[in-house]
Amino acid sequence: MNVADLLARRSIRKYTDEPIRADQLQAALEAAMAAPSAMHCDPWRFIVIESQADRDRLADALPFGQMLRHAPMGIIVCGDLNVAHRNQLSYLLQDVSAAIQNLLLALHAQGLGAVWLGIHPNDDRVAAVKASFDIPDHVIPVSAIALGHPAEHPEARTRFNANHVHYGKW
Amino acid sequence: MNVADLLARRSIRKYTDEPIRADQLQAALEAAMAAPSAMHCDPWRFIVIESQADRDRLADALPFGQMLRHAPMGIIVCGDLNVAHRNQLSYLLQDVSAAIQNLLLALHAQGLGAVWLGIHPNDDRVAAVKASFDIPDHVIPVSAIALGHPAEHPEARTRFNANHVHYGKW
Repeated sequence: MNVADLLARRSIRKYTDEPIRADQLQAALEAAMAAPSAMHCDPWRFIVIESQADRDRLADALPFGQMLRHAPMGIIVCGDLNVAHRNQLSYLLQDVSAAIQNLLLALHAQGLGAVWLGIHPNDDRVAAVKASFDIPDHVIPVSAIALGHPAEHPEARTRFNANHVHYGKW
Repeated sequence: MNVADLLARRSIRKYTDEPIRADQLQAALEAAMAAPSAMHCDPWRFIVIESQADRDRLADALPFGQMLRHAPMGIIVCGDLNVAHRNQLSYLLQDVSAAIQNLLLALHAQGLGAVWLGIHPNDDRVAAVKASFDIPDHVIPVSAIALGHPAEHPEARTRFNANHVHYGKW
């Protein structure tokens, strides 16, 4: 792995018709669940969405997730509050987000593309996704991922800003 | 980048005396700030901690951060609530956590080791870190990183659990 690889992962919203293979999904989930988590509670949970009807229902809940209608796959990434360290939402969000970033990078490493779609803390989206996919009360759908084979190829880049770095104190 | 690289990044808590070079830190920060963020608000902020006195003060605030006393460097990773999408803590935590995961991976890619140390939502730790490092009210120290050249070399692994994956609905 090179640092440049981390800059080359970009949000991909356009996909070809080629499906995601089971081994590609498996590798991505293994990477997601290799992320660090507070006290190794591993509160992350994944709902893999493949059928056109299910992807449409997810897109119905997510105004910025319309590409799900044309993506071969979506994944709803959730966190289980009953499992998170001290049942704290903050740890849940940190752990799930680290897993999502690993998931995105593992897809990129396999030549696939994906985009992170916000669900939490938008109450309307959380409620709609929970209702549509039978998610229990103690489980929070944090974000969704749309994924597929890239039909766009943005350049590598960082948004590095030296003003965001302090030394010794704020 | 291979998926295996993502499984090879492990928490490293023991370091040699070799310092972190400026170019290594720069590459890690560029990777951190290449993470996705909600509406590109980029709420992440970084405080680089190098002197023995500063590392000791950070360790004083973090019960599980005692390795900071012997690490060549620490980084406090914060989020600015005034900058986060809709000033929402959830987006702040998601964005900062994605940046931290990229930071950890960029260190690993350079042969360095690091560990993610929780600050938020522990009120005592947040207050102590804010006071010690002059962090303004609207900025939340989410986590700290201890980093250095690895003096331990744990095996690659995933904590993949098939029970954490659902298909079509929960």
